[in-house]
Amino acid sequence: MKHDLLHDTLGVVNVGLEMFTSSVAQAGAPLVHLDWRPAGDGNPRLAWTLAQLAGDADDPDALGSRIDRANDAAANRMLAARPVLTDVSLRADAIWPELWANGRKTLTHAGAPIPWARMCDPMKGTMIGAMLYENWADTPDDAAGRLARGEVEFLPNHDIGAVGPMSGAISPSMPVFVVKNATHGNLAYTNFTEGIGRVLRFGAYEPDVIERLRWIAAVLAPAIKAALGCIPGGVDLKAIQSQALLMGDEVHSRNSAATALFHMAIGGALAGSDFDRARSREALDFIAATSQFFLNLSMVASKAIMDATHGVEGSSIVTAIARNGVTTAIRVSGLGGRWFEAPSDTPVGLFFPGFSQEDANADLGDSAICETAGYGGQALAASPALVQLVGGSVAQAVEYSREMYHVTWTRNPVMSLPNLEFAGAPAGIEVRKVVDTGIRPVVTTGIAHKRAGVGQIGAGIVRVPLECFTQAVEALADGFPPARE
Amino acid sequence: MKHDLLHDTLGVVNVGLEMFTSSVAQAGAPLVHLDWRPAGDGNPRLAWTLAQLAGDADDPDALGSRIDRANDAAANRMLAARPVLTDVSLRADAIWPELWANGRKTLTHAGAPIPWARMCDPMKGTMIGAMLYENWADTPDDAAGRLARGEVEFLPNHDIGAVGPMSGAISPSMPVFVVKNATHGNLAYTNFTEGIGRVLRFGAYEPDVIERLRWIAAVLAPAIKAALGCIPGGVDLKAIQSQALLMGDEVHSRNSAATALFHMAIGGALAGSDFDRARSREALDFIAATSQFFLNLSMVASKAIMDATHGVEGSSIVTAIARNGVTTAIRVSGLGGRWFEAPSDTPVGLFFPGFSQEDANADLGDSAICETAGYGGQALAASPALVQLVGGSVAQAVEYSREMYHVTWTRNPVMSLPNLEFAGAPAGIEVRKVVDTGIRPVVTTGIAHKRAGVGQIGAGIVRVPLECFTQAVEALADGFPPARE
Repeated sequence: MKHDLLHDTLGVVNVGLEMFTSSVAQAGAPLVHLDWRPAGDGNPRLAWTLAQLAGDADDPDALGSRIDRANDAAANRMLAARPVLTDVSLRADAIWPELWANGRKTLTHAGAPIPWARMCDPMKGTMIGAMLYENWADTPDDAAGRLARGEVEFLPNHDIGAVGPMSGAISPSMPVFVVKNATHGNLAYTNFTEGIGRVLRFGAYEPDVIERLRWIAAVLAPAIKAALGCIPGGVDLKAIQSQALLMGDEVHSRNSAATALFHMAIGGALAGSDFDRARSREALDFIAATSQFFLNLSMVASKAIMDATHGVEGSSIVTAIARNGVTTAIRVSGLGGRWFEAPSDTPVGLFFPGFSQEDANADLGDSAICETAGYGGQALAASPALVQLVGGSVAQAVEYSREMYHVTWTRNPVMSLPNLEFAGAPAGIEVRKVVDTGIRPVVTTGIAHKRAGVGQIGAGIVRVPLECFTQAVEALADGFPPARE
Repeated sequence: MKHDLLHDTLGVVNVGLEMFTSSVAQAGAPLVHLDWRPAGDGNPRLAWTLAQLAGDADDPDALGSRIDRANDAAANRMLAARPVLTDVSLRADAIWPELWANGRKTLTHAGAPIPWARMCDPMKGTMIGAMLYENWADTPDDAAGRLARGEVEFLPNHDIGAVGPMSGAISPSMPVFVVKNATHGNLAYTNFTEGIGRVLRFGAYEPDVIERLRWIAAVLAPAIKAALGCIPGGVDLKAIQSQALLMGDEVHSRNSAATALFHMAIGGALAGSDFDRARSREALDFIAATSQFFLNLSMVASKAIMDATHGVEGSSIVTAIARNGVTTAIRVSGLGGRWFEAPSDTPVGLFFPGFSQEDANADLGDSAICETAGYGGQALAASPALVQLVGGSVAQAVEYSREMYHVTWTRNPVMSLPNLEFAGAPAGIEVRKVVDTGIRPVVTTGIAHKRAGVGQIGAGIVRVPLECFTQAVEALADGFPPARE
């Protein structure tokens, strides 16, 4: 492991087995547990493959050297991307008419493809709720029966350029945010934050949940659309993300500052528009009361950035991390649309009163797209306040970011981490580095109850399964498919 | 110096002469310079006085023991205070009619009383601008002549329950914020933030400066008044301050988060009100573009808190720090309205391009009221991002707060400092502790050019002169005036 100027605090670094850390921690010394394993995870064939994929300064034609150059190119695209919120589409079927043409019924979901029978309970609840919202079923039982009989197609959000938190469903009459990467021109989409409590994305489908979704479609979405109509050039989401990192957010599990900055960006425009006054107030006050409102916007901004990073021939940078509640899957820039998939870990963190670790569903949601773009777990050092929500100490939060420098390709100069003396945040998770160090990327996340409808029961930290990366490394050794562009 | 659990990082602490620190700093070690001097500042008489004023556990009737009890009572009032923005008065003369009755002309200013002849150049410029704004003079020369001839009375803001940043002038047709301490019922007032660039508070009086003041009176103030009319109970400023401390503000020299939170608090109400739409947008967009907008509100909240802390018989807690650009003056809870005054230091910090330390005016403004309430320099650990503006490192910012625990009476449980593992911020500067340790309270501050009209030229750090505290300690030994209440 290279010497790092950021490691200037005395303390104990534990490498390997976590059991050795407890006595040190009890003694009160600063401590970080590196989730280290031998290169290739103790697998000689994988270690050999890794060696074949290493860059070679003397041989620019070596596979590893070509990967290094491709990663530089991909990282440049990542750092240059500039996602801007340009519009709200009041209906999803205006964006993707083919999904609901000629009687076709489709619902999208988070993570890699998964059939109804294998979905976790919260995702099933979400799909039932979406059926009721679209009037495709009369009762929850009716909805479940129709879903089980295959009346509805399922499609990952990522396959239509979209992302959604937790179960992540998009149905035809839901409004969606439209984000344009002003640098490279690509578009990305997401659904709307529903607020807290019982919400569709956690698998709730009671009447009040459906009612709130209708209010979002009828009031909140048109209000934000009206505001955007009065803001030439749209709202620069990357600028909000960058500022929020100086204000205690890592813009995944904490978005308090980003939400306030977004409110400031649209509030004046909405107040000045001819949109109905009472509904303008409802919309602005809803945003003000929803500290995670910006989460979906941070996700879609990250999606727009990472879609521009995807498809660089030979690049081994991770461009998506997505969880469907059963598996965690990654995509790699130079490896096409293939998902490298493994069973999800269960997040560890703090639970709301009355709930515990046993109630937690496996890791769920498209929101880890934030980590691929350098936010969330990568930028945990930016968010001391988040440790109050997910557990641990501020020193540990800072150490997570320090650790992530070992598995990332570059640093993002416009994403400053104050508690690392304004160093650029680690940017561009690289699959060879992950397998080589055994350090698995850290994700900050909400925790869903494993039963549908209960909702969020806590927040915490999870790591991406190593197997996703070992699969990707093996695929890298098999050579690259033709680049997308 | 007592052992402090917060001092768990290895490093070098330099006590006394600052010259010894440079070699350590060059070696890259974490370092804090304690501005320490011998108890009583090397003055035997003062050291003796301090000894007389020390608390005595065995003698509850000892002067020091009575002071300790009074400080507990004062600190309880300080922690219990809850300042709420309840209204905007569209004209100052509606609040203080007597100042402008029967042809009387008054202008208020920051700091302790000071005549025209002794005012610093920026404050003179501000007074000239206020004359032009009120149409009390035709030209700047005319205004200066009238001021020199004594046509206008000057009054410290603090004497009318108000505060103002930098020169801090209030004139009869200026709008003022009205803040009520919901716990104790007292009221406090401040003028409006003018934004950045050339502004009255830094002594500018060109036509564009006066024009902006007129826009504030005609658009911004009525807009916020209209919003407040739709918010039953007003806007809880202490809640905003507390949240902002978790978001990188120390709510004196950095108010980015607090301004955004304030925007969120009033934006919906204004959009829903019947206030003119175009002007609503102007007002909200002005706040959004003025990252220090909340400064005046943080000051007036602090004033409301500290006025409730003032007047406790026997208390040695500082209830005001105010600078008129020539002197820095403090008031002490149990010592009535008397100002303990000494020549101001000049702030040290970072300067905007083209300016340097030689251009800096001596410390100026009522804004150090924030420090008396535990914000600003006391809470510097909350604001890593501020070091980008004022210079230094994040570690130094954290050390400033650690140092302040040595001169404060208590900790404020609702003011968490994330980088000190959410410890309550130091609260209640205590004059005996300052003189005993020689550690002078730290203030974060903007830096004014010493010539009127140039405006802000940088931001930095300044310390309150020790002499203010030695005078107060001597006054304490002389006994207490009757309590105000």
